[in-house]
Amino acid sequence: MPVYKAPVTDTLFVLNDVLKLSNYSNLAGFADLGEDLLEAITGEAAKLAEEVFHPLNLSGDREGCKRNDDATVTVPKGFKQAYDAYCQGGWLGLAMPEEFGGQGLPYTLHSAVGEYMSSANISLTMYPGLTQGAIAAIVVHGSEEQKAKYLPKMVEGTWSGTMNLTEPHCGTDLGLLRTKAVPAGDGSYKISGQKIFISAGEHSMTDNIIHLVLARIEGAPAGTKGISLFIVPKFLVGDDGVPGARNGVSCGAIEHKMGIHGNSTCVMNYDDATGYLLGGENKGLAAMFVMMNEARLGVGLQGLSLGEAAYQNAAAYARDRLQGRSLSGPKAPDKAADPIIVHPDVRRALMTMRAFTEAGRAFTLWTALKSDIAHRSPDAAEREAAEDLLGLATPILKGVLTDKGFDHAVAAQQVFGGHGYIEEHGMSQYVRDARITMIYEGANGIQALDLVGRKLAANGGRAVMAMFKEIGDFCEENREDEKLSFYTKGLKKGLNDLQASTMWFMQNAMVKPDNAGAGSTDYMHLFGLVVLGYMWAKSVKAAEERLAAGDSRTEFLEAKRVTARFYFERILPETTLRKARIEAGADTVMALAADAF
Amino acid sequence: MPVYKAPVTDTLFVLNDVLKLSNYSNLAGFADLGEDLLEAITGEAAKLAEEVFHPLNLSGDREGCKRNDDATVTVPKGFKQAYDAYCQGGWLGLAMPEEFGGQGLPYTLHSAVGEYMSSANISLTMYPGLTQGAIAAIVVHGSEEQKAKYLPKMVEGTWSGTMNLTEPHCGTDLGLLRTKAVPAGDGSYKISGQKIFISAGEHSMTDNIIHLVLARIEGAPAGTKGISLFIVPKFLVGDDGVPGARNGVSCGAIEHKMGIHGNSTCVMNYDDATGYLLGGENKGLAAMFVMMNEARLGVGLQGLSLGEAAYQNAAAYARDRLQGRSLSGPKAPDKAADPIIVHPDVRRALMTMRAFTEAGRAFTLWTALKSDIAHRSPDAAEREAAEDLLGLATPILKGVLTDKGFDHAVAAQQVFGGHGYIEEHGMSQYVRDARITMIYEGANGIQALDLVGRKLAANGGRAVMAMFKEIGDFCEENREDEKLSFYTKGLKKGLNDLQASTMWFMQNAMVKPDNAGAGSTDYMHLFGLVVLGYMWAKSVKAAEERLAAGDSRTEFLEAKRVTARFYFERILPETTLRKARIEAGADTVMALAADAF
Repeated sequence: MPVYKAPVTDTLFVLNDVLKLSNYSNLAGFADLGEDLLEAITGEAAKLAEEVFHPLNLSGDREGCKRNDDATVTVPKGFKQAYDAYCQGGWLGLAMPEEFGGQGLPYTLHSAVGEYMSSANISLTMYPGLTQGAIAAIVVHGSEEQKAKYLPKMVEGTWSGTMNLTEPHCGTDLGLLRTKAVPAGDGSYKISGQKIFISAGEHSMTDNIIHLVLARIEGAPAGTKGISLFIVPKFLVGDDGVPGARNGVSCGAIEHKMGIHGNSTCVMNYDDATGYLLGGENKGLAAMFVMMNEARLGVGLQGLSLGEAAYQNAAAYARDRLQGRSLSGPKAPDKAADPIIVHPDVRRALMTMRAFTEAGRAFTLWTALKSDIAHRSPDAAEREAAEDLLGLATPILKGVLTDKGFDHAVAAQQVFGGHGYIEEHGMSQYVRDARITMIYEGANGIQALDLVGRKLAANGGRAVMAMFKEIGDFCEENREDEKLSFYTKGLKKGLNDLQASTMWFMQNAMVKPDNAGAGSTDYMHLFGLVVLGYMWAKSVKAAEERLAAGDSRTEFLEAKRVTARFYFERILPETTLRKARIEAGADTVMALAADAF
Repeated sequence: MPVYKAPVTDTLFVLNDVLKLSNYSNLAGFADLGEDLLEAITGEAAKLAEEVFHPLNLSGDREGCKRNDDATVTVPKGFKQAYDAYCQGGWLGLAMPEEFGGQGLPYTLHSAVGEYMSSANISLTMYPGLTQGAIAAIVVHGSEEQKAKYLPKMVEGTWSGTMNLTEPHCGTDLGLLRTKAVPAGDGSYKISGQKIFISAGEHSMTDNIIHLVLARIEGAPAGTKGISLFIVPKFLVGDDGVPGARNGVSCGAIEHKMGIHGNSTCVMNYDDATGYLLGGENKGLAAMFVMMNEARLGVGLQGLSLGEAAYQNAAAYARDRLQGRSLSGPKAPDKAADPIIVHPDVRRALMTMRAFTEAGRAFTLWTALKSDIAHRSPDAAEREAAEDLLGLATPILKGVLTDKGFDHAVAAQQVFGGHGYIEEHGMSQYVRDARITMIYEGANGIQALDLVGRKLAANGGRAVMAMFKEIGDFCEENREDEKLSFYTKGLKKGLNDLQASTMWFMQNAMVKPDNAGAGSTDYMHLFGLVVLGYMWAKSVKAAEERLAAGDSRTEFLEAKRVTARFYFERILPETTLRKARIEAGADTVMALAADAF
């Protein structure tokens, strides 16, 4: 059976020592969050993840979801009870507005504990995860009546939510969508069409499912300018707030997927279903992006989560599995062989996972904190600055942490040798589950284009310049610190590569946009390498401060030094390669005729 | 449905123009192999792969293998007929000795067409593939009687073969194995124990299955010095050569694997099964390595094959799928959107796959040719030189081509977006199937250790020095050729990184062996990058020669230039990163306590 233990010590280190959350007590929801309360909350979340969610992970993968002949869907055994425990513990509404029954705590905290849930059972965590995205869209774009009608039930988890974007012929290019909405005369619409890949699309875990559906109102313009977003409840909700008649929406099939078998990914058929406009007519894309941006951060977190879970299992297996002898002589001479963790190549793999995952955790929470500041700061300039960095960080976080999370799941599986390839150890599941995170909520190539095509240039490059300045200032401020100079020097070099590549785009992509596209994925990873290097430098600084203060977590803090050094010696130098690829430009990429491939 | 078309044009280019097979007519089996015959044979193989093997790939994955209550195993529908067609076409015995019914043609040709079969259906191709490995071991180590008894039936495919190495507690470290052999008094042995992960372990496609089983003779020394190899037929074969009584070997279970579902990977139980010593007592490891070395080349080829098949599907999908518009303005203005092959990031992915796969094909056939020379040259010095390079190339080929084959399957799946994640398109299958190639026949970390720990130092570094000289000479000889100077310059730089890293190992790994282990995987990939760069340089040279000679394959040959340039601009520069990682040494890798992971 796979193991999982929530990395609470590291989470608290990031929140308290790296991000210094106590400095943000002016933000709504942050005031009472002292170190003790943080420890209590993360500890409770850890328990739920380890004891309730995790034991259902492997069985959920095996059982999968089943569409019954009456179009209902059966989810794996135990999922309903675990979902109820999650909702009753208040986890769904942790960071939701108090006026709708949430606890109003920071999104940063929600992200911190969300990692545990996804590590323990991503398929199960997706059910409330989709609801959270739908809530976010209704909070921002819903009328007062819609908010009152749907949000309290969704925040408590009695009703769930979904996002319906993709159609068989269109995913990335939503301008092509065909699902249509016809005014019914009473202010509502009749929605017809087919949506595919709908996560948590149908199940009986909640009393109602609130589908948010992109559709085109009859006569609306073609392309993305004619798209509207609709609330389409599975059961129509009367003025008394009670679910009544079944709406014209049903699950046509469950997708046969590579992984996340525990989540009911559905083909959803809309047949004159009653829908209610959410946000303005033809303003659907903007409303959808509220869900989407939050979902992208959530998916980045999933990548991180699965990498972490896979890493833990690889480390445990490497400590247990006896095979061969250390290159420097037997380490367990009393046993038939040494545990494979003595082998440098196994450790190299483990250290690589660890170096990314710990920095990735810091980056995720750093980004989540920007989201909190952007939404909760009383200061407009502070909000704007945070919004800038949040927008910039989102595609990097989604693209890099999911690419790496998958890589780590694969590397962790490799530590198991042949035993990693059979399903019993659960390592195949981590790989199969992690694979989707690189695809959904905007495939990673789209994230890279979002970064290069939109985020870089937005507001005259304000965000990227602020980011460069923040990292550059950190290097400058800590230049004289002997304990940090190795890191600030390496970071500065990485930053130089990143700045040079940014400049290259400015000089070469205006005249020839293909130069931006040909370098976009490398640029996203280059940016990720530098940002994660920055997180490592900040983490070492925090660790040195704590060690100097006589903190008792000595082994933990000293491991930060080692892992950071590993990152700077072996991983960050990749910036040079990424830069070389970017500067190679689009010529060879675009040269061949389509038929030559 | 997935598509597949055997890349015959490229195979013939490698055989005729890059390797110039016609120069080897002095080798047994090469004499009659003119360009026409090569074209005819590869064309026939292509037909079998495309029309018979490929249509069973997706269905074989879905159906999988089933162990029945009587311990028989049912393979997917159509597999038996396809297997028969393969055998009847003479493909199993293509490169086998004529005295046992084979055709005695080059192993190089066997590899060339083997790629097609694995691309089309790896699970099916594994059945005869295991037989070929078993044949190789019996050819080298069998007594005359054993050869006469088993080989003709195996070469014609009426009987199949397996390799039984792994036990639940030991895979890499075979010295730990527990399966025991007790002399029966009549020259035979009674074999008892359990083997796991046995590919093609049980099925009814052949009249008999000849298991080659590693076991320890009672009283033999512990560790690898006490291991012997046995022939254990499923049905005992009488002096008349007819399979008779059922032997004490049976399939205990089918493994639940991530992929290669069409192959019956079995737990095999040996219960006083009659076995016959193959090779000397306690000489099992040496005998096993005959199978193993050949199998490693075969697995490297599988990695290449699956990368190629996945690439072809991604290219086809990218030409068909309409989504979004080109960054440089609409390319298909009459359609609702442009095909996604207009997007540079999609092309970057396709070009990356292509750049590795074409060079990988050349490298595979270059290595196979070394095998032919090593086994067939009348000249002892030539044989030794070829054997050196074969030994050196084997771990690189296995490790690099399978790591990359998997990466390409993943990248190809990514081109499909969400459609890649559902099983219907077959892209998930390529990923799941390719995953095993990184693990079996020695996990890739073991390949890297074999390279660094054994192959580098063998015979005072003779092999590696010969390889460096060959590449260096190529650069020198073509230095003045303007059409090649871009490539020779880049190759020389890569070679310098490789030589410097080799030197670093010599200076740092003697005193501290962990320095070798910590850099082994990076070194394997560094070597692979340079060797594939060498293959590209040779390929461009051949293409330029053909173009200058007025060859009519203009588009094909010009694409070689473009793809080579892509490789040199974007991929080969990775040598610098690999070198930096190697030179970082083992310190951070070994620093943490095992419990700190």
